[in-house]
Amino acid sequence: MAETIVGRQPVLEALKAGTAIDKILFLEGVQGKQLEDIRAVAQARNIPVVVMNRYRFRDLVGHQKTQGVIALLSKPYSYSTVEQLLARAAERNEKPFVLVLDEIEDPQNLGALVRTAECAGVHGAIVPKHRSAPVSAAVVKASAGATEHLPIAEVTNIMHTIEELKQEHLWITGLDASGEKLYTEVDYTSPIALVVGNEGRGMRRLVKDHCDFVVRIPLLGKIASLNASAAGAIVMYEVVRQRCGKH
Amino acid sequence: MAETIVGRQPVLEALKAGTAIDKILFLEGVQGKQLEDIRAVAQARNIPVVVMNRYRFRDLVGHQKTQGVIALLSKPYSYSTVEQLLARAAERNEKPFVLVLDEIEDPQNLGALVRTAECAGVHGAIVPKHRSAPVSAAVVKASAGATEHLPIAEVTNIMHTIEELKQEHLWITGLDASGEKLYTEVDYTSPIALVVGNEGRGMRRLVKDHCDFVVRIPLLGKIASLNASAAGAIVMYEVVRQRCGKH
Repeated sequence: MAETIVGRQPVLEALKAGTAIDKILFLEGVQGKQLEDIRAVAQARNIPVVVMNRYRFRDLVGHQKTQGVIALLSKPYSYSTVEQLLARAAERNEKPFVLVLDEIEDPQNLGALVRTAECAGVHGAIVPKHRSAPVSAAVVKASAGATEHLPIAEVTNIMHTIEELKQEHLWITGLDASGEKLYTEVDYTSPIALVVGNEGRGMRRLVKDHCDFVVRIPLLGKIASLNASAAGAIVMYEVVRQRCGKH
Repeated sequence: MAETIVGRQPVLEALKAGTAIDKILFLEGVQGKQLEDIRAVAQARNIPVVVMNRYRFRDLVGHQKTQGVIALLSKPYSYSTVEQLLARAAERNEKPFVLVLDEIEDPQNLGALVRTAECAGVHGAIVPKHRSAPVSAAVVKASAGATEHLPIAEVTNIMHTIEELKQEHLWITGLDASGEKLYTEVDYTSPIALVVGNEGRGMRRLVKDHCDFVVRIPLLGKIASLNASAAGAIVMYEVVRQRCGKH
């Protein structure tokens, strides 16, 4: 059985904190204000609440004290290694194309970037262990299931990983509004890693310093920046366009 | 003062139905289960709840019966006309570039598409009156404020509007997974309208039939489609790339 949280207050707190919950089970007949709060927040977060009779409920939870409420947590995601991502490129006899997502915090953005990456034939994504949205149920959903197909590696130190990628002959291309070149001025037919930074703050100074190029997307309106997932999509498909010739 | 909803049950129902609410005001000291439910759902939807003393509360709401709760609705968006969008292109001495968003239902997608359009120098967006997300507070937020800069026209009949755009010499380019050409094979340096269809169903058959071209984005993975806002971003920036030469 999946990991669980039991008890009324613990489940309510977990819900409010945004914990990745697949489903909430209520024992038939239980009542109380906290249960109604759990229902309201679960509904707002699109998490199903299932009422079970005492026999099925006991079958599932055994004899732990639950106050009639149990939350089933989403299964933890199984991460890959950077070596596995690069091996995928080698197997397909393609020049490596990896996506480094540095401190993307919004699960919607992370999911959207993974989905686009899978469509663009990216070999895998790399995310830092800290200060990044984890691959939660919300990310899986926002990715339309692409997390099942695109391997994602979790690393402790992005700068260290970037240096490793350089030793594997990948060109590190950062995407940032401060970029000195336009994104269309770089040749992507060599092995590359595309680095996309945080939604609000952009790329970290130190990460930027480790890039071979930093490119920008031209902004022709008044808004100061594109959404991270739109920006990522635009550059990933410029890579596809260049690699497939004129397509 | 903004439009309001008053009373405990009406406010709770409006919250659950996803109505665009800017803020909820509580009269100091009021209590009850419904108020707690309102707080929980408002919190989950990121809507601020402000407690006011009876003098400020009365100043705002006058003598209507409120049960101590009032929700302030978001201001209705002020739509433009198709003529105004085309006039913008003429003023700037640019070839028209408009975005037709046919039945985009998710406010996040609509907001994201409007944001990218504003960045890509699109002259305006066209949405149908029915079966499209309205320009709500959620759309304004998802657009990062781009709805303030990009005019949006609301029309009753998209097919009729497409025929009008053709008479203004715009080439109608639909974006759909079934497209016979790749999106990079079309010349976008002429006046164009880019049509993006519904997130799930894609473009309607009838709308597709009214397009001069239907183009597709190559999908190199296993996922069957890109997110509508990512797909829109990719093609909008291909237009920018072509129009700015190599940039």
